[in-house]
Amino acid sequence: MNELRKDYILNRWVIIAIERSKRPNQFIQKERIRSDTKMCPFCTGNEHLMTSVVDEINQSKILVRSIFNKFPAVKMDGNPDIRTDNQFYTYASAYGQHEVIVETPDHGVELEDLPHDHIKAVIDMYIRRINALDSLPHIKYVSIFKNRGSSAGASIDHAHSQLIAYNYLPVAVENELKTLYEYFILHESCPYCEIIKTESKSFRHVFENDSFISFTPYASRHPYEVWIFPKKHLASIVLLNEKERWDLAEIMKKLLMRLDALNYPPYNVQIHNALPNGENFHFHIEIAPRLSTWAGFELETETVINVVSPEDAAKFYRGEVNTQ
Amino acid sequence: MNELRKDYILNRWVIIAIERSKRPNQFIQKERIRSDTKMCPFCTGNEHLMTSVVDEINQSKILVRSIFNKFPAVKMDGNPDIRTDNQFYTYASAYGQHEVIVETPDHGVELEDLPHDHIKAVIDMYIRRINALDSLPHIKYVSIFKNRGSSAGASIDHAHSQLIAYNYLPVAVENELKTLYEYFILHESCPYCEIIKTESKSFRHVFENDSFISFTPYASRHPYEVWIFPKKHLASIVLLNEKERWDLAEIMKKLLMRLDALNYPPYNVQIHNALPNGENFHFHIEIAPRLSTWAGFELETETVINVVSPEDAAKFYRGEVNTQ
Repeated sequence: MNELRKDYILNRWVIIAIERSKRPNQFIQKERIRSDTKMCPFCTGNEHLMTSVVDEINQSKILVRSIFNKFPAVKMDGNPDIRTDNQFYTYASAYGQHEVIVETPDHGVELEDLPHDHIKAVIDMYIRRINALDSLPHIKYVSIFKNRGSSAGASIDHAHSQLIAYNYLPVAVENELKTLYEYFILHESCPYCEIIKTESKSFRHVFENDSFISFTPYASRHPYEVWIFPKKHLASIVLLNEKERWDLAEIMKKLLMRLDALNYPPYNVQIHNALPNGENFHFHIEIAPRLSTWAGFELETETVINVVSPEDAAKFYRGEVNTQ
Repeated sequence: MNELRKDYILNRWVIIAIERSKRPNQFIQKERIRSDTKMCPFCTGNEHLMTSVVDEINQSKILVRSIFNKFPAVKMDGNPDIRTDNQFYTYASAYGQHEVIVETPDHGVELEDLPHDHIKAVIDMYIRRINALDSLPHIKYVSIFKNRGSSAGASIDHAHSQLIAYNYLPVAVENELKTLYEYFILHESCPYCEIIKTESKSFRHVFENDSFISFTPYASRHPYEVWIFPKKHLASIVLLNEKERWDLAEIMKKLLMRLDALNYPPYNVQIHNALPNGENFHFHIEIAPRLSTWAGFELETETVINVVSPEDAAKFYRGEVNTQ
């Protein structure tokens, strides 16, 4: 029997339909192609192809750089104020900064292949860049995300994350903040703090360490989707101390290495983060493997069909099933 | 300058960033592969591979069949009532019917390649199936959509549409209904009726005939996205008369044939339709070519980056630019 499920707190619905996984040709199966390093703008020695470096962490064997995106979605020009003409036409300049965080100078090395201290340096860079950008004039949100593989939207193969700081509080973030706030008003507690407790004892529990817990979400929208939450109620990734950053690096490495057993699938990493002062928020990281395609049904209804149940996905991460 | 834009009435935002179209490897460029007809369950002569036929339009040279989906997302079993356990776990059986509308028995012929009267028969079938299903017990919505090409979520190459009738009013439809209703209360008019008037004189206007108008939406979320609206305020596709069905077939054929000049891109067609009695609604059809991938930024923020402006897309449909 297929199941209709709602997200813990958001008005987001999925249909868990595991029998549809038997469809012929159901997963995008692309061969993993390693691109040429000669023309790669993120490789050591190709600095002449790179845009200017915004920030750099350079420690013994570690090099993490944030550079300007050569084809930015947002730029610091135009009028950042949102205006409406003729009641239906609302617009502004897409104002802000778009950076690429080159995680390693080594082409062909994935984030999860890096040593713990190097992954921690990537997290340090995320935090440095958020802190540098989120209080600039007109900036309403700093989105940090990672696209691995072309089916996850990457256009360059070399391991990198991205940052878009822009002049609008995104609808998805606003909804999540609002929902958490409304729950807090009613219950005087954080719903995610409650959910973590329940999921730590559920079939969806995956790994945990001192500071973080990971589980597959009840209404997962992507096959093998997995979420990482700090056990402490922390509004933003920028509040992590040194030990917590280590622990985050550890759990991210472990999950992504497990995921790579599915023939290095494309995936997105999204940091769900509060604004500065958004103290009701509980920051978390969502890892979304991109093994299926949202079709006409998903676009029209926003109900997402997922052919892998989160309970099966958790078994996979815990190593209780053989990889495909 | 890139532009942040909001949908006419919904809280949906996009960044129109045409310079990003210069990114290397930016569009998914797949060769169009024609699958083998021997094992195709939708081909004439392969009826033994087909699930049972639910409904059929069989007139001289026209054959349109609706059959049960072999791997249904929803089924008429289990408990269709939505329940909540432990406050965060909301679920029901994914209850309903999932059909495939085989548009033609001829493998390799696209919907838009069919003659007008055949396309009209496909529209007739959409209407017959909605009428047959939308008042059944527990059915809250009938979604009709088409996926063409694997990047649009299709798993079978033979031209077909799909129908999912299920036990939940989708969030996207509920939001649109609610927004239209709120506008109606304030202004005593339909916002889409107003928008059609403005777009008929804008740079985004594409084609029109007696009954329908097409234009590229101001905040388009897909490259070359195009919308079709009945000029009359009609809540549902089921209300179309014979002449209007002809006119819809004509405008759909014209738009999709133009689109095919982009090397037969993958696309989705979504019918945005009212519930029975949803009289404030203004039904319309959205055609979404799937030439780009929603990445981590889109998943996290729900702000969509589109590298083709709707103004440029309208020029393309109107034939004012050479195809790529």
